[in-house]
Amino acid sequence: DGLFSTRLVWRAQLRYTHPHRSDPRGVSNFTTRSDSSNFEARRLRMKIGGHGFKPWIDYYFEVDLQPSRDVDDDAAASSARVIDYRITLQPIDEIGLRVGQWKIDFNRERVDSSGRQQFVERSIVNRVFTIDRQVGAQIRGRLFKETYADMRYWAGVFNGEGRSVNNPDNDMMYMGRLQWNFLGRDLKWRQSDVSFHKLPTGSLAFAAATNNGKCSRWSSSGCGNLSGLTGPSATSQNFKTEQYVQEFAFKYRGLSIQQEYHWKDVEDKRNMTVHKYKGMYAQAGYFFHGLVPQIPEKLELAFRYAFVDAPVASNVALTDEREEYTWGLNYFFSGHDNKITVDYSILELEDASTGMSYDDNRIRVQWDISF
Amino acid sequence: DGLFSTRLVWRAQLRYTHPHRSDPRGVSNFTTRSDSSNFEARRLRMKIGGHGFKPWIDYYFEVDLQPSRDVDDDAAASSARVIDYRITLQPIDEIGLRVGQWKIDFNRERVDSSGRQQFVERSIVNRVFTIDRQVGAQIRGRLFKETYADMRYWAGVFNGEGRSVNNPDNDMMYMGRLQWNFLGRDLKWRQSDVSFHKLPTGSLAFAAATNNGKCSRWSSSGCGNLSGLTGPSATSQNFKTEQYVQEFAFKYRGLSIQQEYHWKDVEDKRNMTVHKYKGMYAQAGYFFHGLVPQIPEKLELAFRYAFVDAPVASNVALTDEREEYTWGLNYFFSGHDNKITVDYSILELEDASTGMSYDDNRIRVQWDISF
Amino acid sequence: DGLFSTRLVWRAQLRYTHPHRSDPRGVSNFTTRSDSSNFEARRLRMKIGGHGFKPWIDYYFEVDLQPSRDVDDDAAASSARVIDYRITLQPIDEIGLRVGQWKIDFNRERVDSSGRQQFVERSIVNRVFTIDRQVGAQIRGRLFKETYADMRYWAGVFNGEGRSVNNPDNDMMYMGRLQWNFLGRDLKWRQSDVSFHKLPTGSLAFAAATNNGKCSRWSSSGCGNLSGLTGPSATSQNFKTEQYVQEFAFKYRGLSIQQEYHWKDVEDKRNMTVHKYKGMYAQAGYFFHGLVPQIPEKLELAFRYAFVDAPVASNVALTDEREEYTWGLNYFFSGHDNKITVDYSILELEDASTGMSYDDNRIRVQWDISF
Repeated sequence: DGLFSTRLVWRAQLRYTHPHRSDPRGVSNFTTRSDSSNFEARRLRMKIGGHGFKPWIDYYFEVDLQPSRDVDDDAAASSARVIDYRITLQPIDEIGLRVGQWKIDFNRERVDSSGRQQFVERSIVNRVFTIDRQVGAQIRGRLFKETYADMRYWAGVFNGEGRSVNNPDNDMMYMGRLQWNFLGRDLKWRQSDVSFHKLPTGSLAFAAATNNGKCSRWSSSGCGNLSGLTGPSATSQNFKTEQYVQEFAFKYRGLSIQQEYHWKDVEDKRNMTVHKYKGMYAQAGYFFHGLVPQIPEKLELAFRYAFVDAPVASNVALTDEREEYTWGLNYFFSGHDNKITVDYSILELEDASTGMSYDDNRIRVQWDISF
Repeated sequence: DGLFSTRLVWRAQLRYTHPHRSDPRGVSNFTTRSDSSNFEARRLRMKIGGHGFKPWIDYYFEVDLQPSRDVDDDAAASSARVIDYRITLQPIDEIGLRVGQWKIDFNRERVDSSGRQQFVERSIVNRVFTIDRQVGAQIRGRLFKETYADMRYWAGVFNGEGRSVNNPDNDMMYMGRLQWNFLGRDLKWRQSDVSFHKLPTGSLAFAAATNNGKCSRWSSSGCGNLSGLTGPSATSQNFKTEQYVQEFAFKYRGLSIQQEYHWKDVEDKRNMTVHKYKGMYAQAGYFFHGLVPQIPEKLELAFRYAFVDAPVASNVALTDEREEYTWGLNYFFSGHDNKITVDYSILELEDASTGMSYDDNRIRVQWDISF
Repeated sequence: DGLFSTRLVWRAQLRYTHPHRSDPRGVSNFTTRSDSSNFEARRLRMKIGGHGFKPWIDYYFEVDLQPSRDVDDDAAASSARVIDYRITLQPIDEIGLRVGQWKIDFNRERVDSSGRQQFVERSIVNRVFTIDRQVGAQIRGRLFKETYADMRYWAGVFNGEGRSVNNPDNDMMYMGRLQWNFLGRDLKWRQSDVSFHKLPTGSLAFAAATNNGKCSRWSSSGCGNLSGLTGPSATSQNFKTEQYVQEFAFKYRGLSIQQEYHWKDVEDKRNMTVHKYKGMYAQAGYFFHGLVPQIPEKLELAFRYAFVDAPVASNVALTDEREEYTWGLNYFFSGHDNKITVDYSILELEDASTGMSYDDNRIRVQWDISF
């Protein structure tokens, strides 16, 4: 009936990589290359969503069915786990409430589903700057809809310890985001202009977040730490993090542009040091069929550049710089629901301690399909 | 068709607590208060049930999608896990057979679903006395239906090691329960008189259970031990447990009353000691709309008292006493399927070793919703 | 519509065993008998399959909901986990492509679902010789359909590290299988002639596989090692395995026959030794109702013999021999979807080091039901 609805989706993201499964980060990843030729179900997901009781009470659950693991990991490391659960009350566009655990709407690259990306994987910026999934509550809404002041806002409070973790203390994470839809139209959280926007559509956004706790970074596994910073088993409240992001996105007639600039300060309260990180990515894609009709209609070409500046953990005055250049090719059999992506990356590291530079490259092939 | 049916339910129990996530038990929980302000999905469940082959062959599976964890726990601790699976053959009311793993019908407070409670969580009695889920087989039935001798019975044999654990030896758990529906009507396993019983309905029950094995208590995690007793990795057959319970329940026109008295003896065969536990809770709730029409119809007020007498592990002649006073408030948007609960507790400990008394209080807010 | 279909099945395999849960293998399993009387949900499975986008794009997911565990295992050992995910493109019978993770079609006993067996569990051959589930890609097809040259073929490349494990290096597993349906009809991957083949149907197959890596055996848990060989945490590329199998299967009017002969060589590259294994099973079942109408129509009797020759790890010149004699009885309430199986085994070990022989027996009762 109209009061209840439900939809169940199964998704598989099947990937082949060579020679690196993930982005190389330290000098040793570049020099002592341990090549691997790997088939992987990078993401197996079960998604359930719908509404209940009222048309404006939405729910959504997402189960990560099988995180892949290394050969020396325990079998339990590949157990199924919930990553998203959220209930959204949105009686009117202007204000709503969401509670649960989800990627908390800090920046576009992270919130765009891994199945709605332009490349095989997110940029090198993601590991350092994502706030990922958090447990808590958030108000959210859209104001001045379809005017030049059209904007969305988000403000929330969370445990701040990442996926599924209880808060060990009274310190909460706070976040806010303001997004200006400067042409009066809203862009969905998805990359590539698959739906071929006939009217130019863009957004400019700023967001900030702060936390006191044991984590200096977050991922689908929960609370973690950046290279050189001590793990979550240490004494409470090690780190005060502050993060800011500027974000831009635009789509028009098969062209898509997306860019973010991140700042992140991590104050290590035990060692009395401050670690300052900066990062940026910019990417663009285009369906060249619009220019050259001989090129297949469902084929997109894309390019991405990214850099991450990270302090050397033992001497925060020094800054290592990593860069990524990625060329990507998407063939959308049925939009993002059934697509093949190939990408090729050149990955570079400038090591501040020695002044040496390193680089490597990587090829990835991926089929993403949802049933 | 009529031979097969199925029903899938998604349930979220979202909770905020301060300053204690669970009941404080030892002196240190009271004195060195480590306050925490915590959002939590206390229970995320997927439930599937139906019947197949015959109308009297029922099945039921329940998956606990994401047990929450502490910040220093491994990510795998939050993996999805089956908690219930059971198949029930009930060709006639008088006798049936259930096999599988489930909360084995020992006492009402435990068997009442966590989504059908009158307060945010079960009383302090539960941790010590619940037999929880076991793997095995049980006969069950209802005799003299709708007479003054109306009764239900249960008798079963189980591995006795808790959820999902194989029996390491030949010793089984045995349990029996007899429930007298003294007014000829049956009370469902759920608290609060949401359905507004127009006829008074009540039950009086007694149950007993005994086990030889490595566990001195059980929980959703499986086999565990009471404070001061040695864990399950020790030599086999450490503990002989014997348990008894008396239980009363009654509902009438918005009033609900429920009470249990528990005895539990744990014989530690290695240390040649007997640990004797006693516990009781009594609770009552009422929809005051029946008396004062200005009070909203869906609002229930409730109160619970409970105590647990537990021997000091190092000197079983001494007995610590814990007490709980909880005031609760339920607003049932749509019965137990969509409700908000707020409760406030005063929790006390009389420490037998020192003669000192301690107390603390706790506030909890919870939204329980099923789709 | 015709472009998408889906089917969800819940399956429970409930088992009672005494005195051994699994096959005894070493001398100590036979001599210091640690009897156990055990109820177990040996397999709780959720299966989802269907097709999408095209009628010839099939998908299939299988979740192992609760692996049972020992009393001293961590609770996370019983977490739900995906065991199968596979997408099959089969536009024509003659050639298709399958990608994902599944039991890679090496031998019939393993690929036959645990819910389509003739006995309570697979033979003693399975633990040593199964290649089980692997992550990768395979081509497959059926040629000369319904002629005397009717055959199926499979050829694939896989990570070779078992379920959900990433490949740590460039070495892949390769496998191939050729199956001759010598009567022009195909036999499904299921045991017992429940469907009562009116025409004789048989197959003869040969398969081979080879791998370089850390595993000397595989199971539902992933990568493992045979008794006496070092575990997967050791240095890379310990083992080069080569395996061959000959297989025969036949069904006609309630009679079913199935047999496999296995060879497996494991070269331990670190210790410079070669371990050579041989194994065989042969089984037959019959619905005697065809001969003696008084015997119930749904009752099958079956017998199986198996042996495994395995080198002594410390001296590969010596060979231990294990043998299995199993009598089985199936009552198929509703085919394999709802059946009760009882089997009784005599298990023997000839210990090469001492020349001694040992034997034991075992009874198992099982109800397998799918909803």
